[in-house]
Amino acid sequence: MILTVTPNPALDVTYAVDALAPGRVHRVRAVTERAGGKGVNVARVLHQLRSPCAVLGLSGGAAGAAVGAELAAAGLDVHLLDRLPGVRRTLVVQGDDGCTTSLWEPGHAPEEPEAAADALVAAVTDRLEHVRVVTVSGSLPPGVPATLPARIARAAAAVGVPAVLDVDGAALHHAAGTAGAVLMPNVDELGSLTGTLPRDAGHAASLARAVVRDGTDPGMGDRPAAVVVTLGASGLVVVTADGAAHARPPARLTGNPTGAGDAACAAVARCLAAAGSVGELDPRRCAVEAVALSAASVLRPVAGEVDVDAYRRWRSEIVVEDL
Amino acid sequence: MILTVTPNPALDVTYAVDALAPGRVHRVRAVTERAGGKGVNVARVLHQLRSPCAVLGLSGGAAGAAVGAELAAAGLDVHLLDRLPGVRRTLVVQGDDGCTTSLWEPGHAPEEPEAAADALVAAVTDRLEHVRVVTVSGSLPPGVPATLPARIARAAAAVGVPAVLDVDGAALHHAAGTAGAVLMPNVDELGSLTGTLPRDAGHAASLARAVVRDGTDPGMGDRPAAVVVTLGASGLVVVTADGAAHARPPARLTGNPTGAGDAACAAVARCLAAAGSVGELDPRRCAVEAVALSAASVLRPVAGEVDVDAYRRWRSEIVVEDL
Repeated sequence: MILTVTPNPALDVTYAVDALAPGRVHRVRAVTERAGGKGVNVARVLHQLRSPCAVLGLSGGAAGAAVGAELAAAGLDVHLLDRLPGVRRTLVVQGDDGCTTSLWEPGHAPEEPEAAADALVAAVTDRLEHVRVVTVSGSLPPGVPATLPARIARAAAAVGVPAVLDVDGAALHHAAGTAGAVLMPNVDELGSLTGTLPRDAGHAASLARAVVRDGTDPGMGDRPAAVVVTLGASGLVVVTADGAAHARPPARLTGNPTGAGDAACAAVARCLAAAGSVGELDPRRCAVEAVALSAASVLRPVAGEVDVDAYRRWRSEIVVEDL
Repeated sequence: MILTVTPNPALDVTYAVDALAPGRVHRVRAVTERAGGKGVNVARVLHQLRSPCAVLGLSGGAAGAAVGAELAAAGLDVHLLDRLPGVRRTLVVQGDDGCTTSLWEPGHAPEEPEAAADALVAAVTDRLEHVRVVTVSGSLPPGVPATLPARIARAAAAVGVPAVLDVDGAALHHAAGTAGAVLMPNVDELGSLTGTLPRDAGHAASLARAVVRDGTDPGMGDRPAAVVVTLGASGLVVVTADGAAHARPPARLTGNPTGAGDAACAAVARCLAAAGSVGELDPRRCAVEAVALSAASVLRPVAGEVDVDAYRRWRSEIVVEDL
C-alpha cells in the first residue's frame, strides 16, 4: 500500500465565467468544488490505476469536512487529522475565452503547529507496518515546521520504507539531508537546492548526481537516495546511486499540465512499491513510467486524473536514454 | 422592531492581491469573510443606529452556518431557516492597484422552493405581532417563486404593518401590484417597471407617481403605497400618495457605494417605524434621512456600515425639494 501524505490539502474551486475583466462585476455561471492538494492528486491517480493507497493529511473546518467527504465518496481510504482551523481554497476562474486565472488562498495556520506536525508524523508511523512507500506532497500550512516532510521520511526509513518527497523551499532543503529520501524537484527547485539552474536534462542529471553522491551540505546531514527532476515538456530525469536516465514524451502534448507532477510522483511511488527499495529501482523503467503517466494526465482536464489508455500505449513509445 | 428579510443571503469574501491579471496564478495575501446579502446590510445599519431589528432569511450548509454565527456574534437577533443546500459567496478581488473585481456565485436552489417560500412567509407572519416595519431585500435563491416578497408584504399589510421591498426583476413587478408596499427601485429598475427610463429626478418622480396612482398593470392588481427611486450620486426621490420630494447629498462623495441602497432602505424603514404607516410618512423627511444615511455609508469601506457622525451632521445639510 502507498501512503500519500498531504500536509496542506485544498478545496479546488472552479468558476465558469464569460471572460474575466479586472474592475468588473461577473455573475459566475457555475461553481464546481473538488478536493485538491498535490498529495490528494497523487492518491487519485493511484486509485484510478487500482494501486492500493491511502490519503493522510491535516485538515479542519467546513471546507476540510467537504474534502474528506468527497474523497471517501470516491472510494479512497482517507484519514484527515482535524488540526487546522480550515482548509484553503484554490480558485480557478475559467473564461469561455479560454483564459484561466488562478487565485490561491494562503493555508490556515494551526493553533499548535508543532503538535500538528507531531500528530502527522505519529499517524504515518502508526500505519507503516502496512505501507510499501510513503509520498509527501505539496506545501505546508503556515507555521508548520519545514522539517515535517524530512521527519516523515526518516520515520519511514527507520523501518525500511522509502519516501518520495515532492516538496519545495525550506522543506526541500531539509528533505535533501534525509537518508533514503527520493526528491522530486522541478528545474527551479533543483536550482534553488544546488545553487545552479540546470541548462538541460544532462546538466540536471549531473547536478542531481552530485546531490545523491555528496548531499547538499557536505559534512552535515545525510544524502537522499534518488532525485527525480521534472523538466516539464522535456520529460524528466531519474538519478539514483546506480544510474541515471532521461525520458521524454514521444510528442509535444497540449492539455492541462496541472497535476502532471503529481502523476509522475504516483508513477515513482508505484515503481518503488514494485522494486521494494530505492536500491532495486531501475532508473530507465522509472523514468518511462513517470513520463508516460504524467503525459497521460495532461490529456485529462482536471488534476488527479489520467487517460489510462494513453498511459498504457505510451509506456512503449517514450523516448529514454541513459545519462 | 424592524424585521429585515434576506431570502438569499451571502458570504462576502474578499481576496487581497497585488493586481489581478487574467491568465496568471495569484497568491492571495489575505482572505476576509463577512456575512452579506442586502437584507443583512440593512440590519447591520439599523443595529449600528440602535434601532431594534431582527434578521430573518433562508440559509443552509457550512457557509450558511458561518453567516448565522457571525451575525449572532455581532449581537444581531438572527433567525435563518435551514432551507437551502448552501449559501452563495460573493467574491471581491481587491488589488493593491485599486482595482476591484467582483465574482458573484449563483444562489443555491432549494430542493423544495415552494416549501422554502411558504416557510419564510410563515416565519414572518409568526413575528408580525412585535414588528413595526418589514423589509425584504435582494435576490431570491434560484427556483424560489418571484411572488415571495409580495406575499410577505401582503401578510404584513393584513395586520397593518408596512413592508419596504428592495427587490428587482420579476419580484419587483409582483411587488408593484401589492397594496401597501413601499418599492425601492433604482433608475434601471424603475425603467424596467414602467417601460420608460427616467431622464432625471423630476421624470423619475412623475413615473413613480403614476405607479402609486394607477399601479403598473391598470385594471389588475393593487397599487403600492410609495415608491422610493434611488438615483446614485443624485440622491433619491420619495413619492407617496400625498407628495413627493427629491433629496441629494450636499457634495459629491467618494468612497464605497456598495451598500448605499441598503442604508437608504434602513432609513426608509426607520421613518416608517416612526410614522406608524405610509400615510403618515413625510416624503421630505424620509428623503433627507435616506440620503444622509446612504451618504454616510459611502464613507465606510464595507457595506452595512455607516459613519454615524457624518449621518447626524448631514441630516441638516441635505438639499431637499418638493416635486
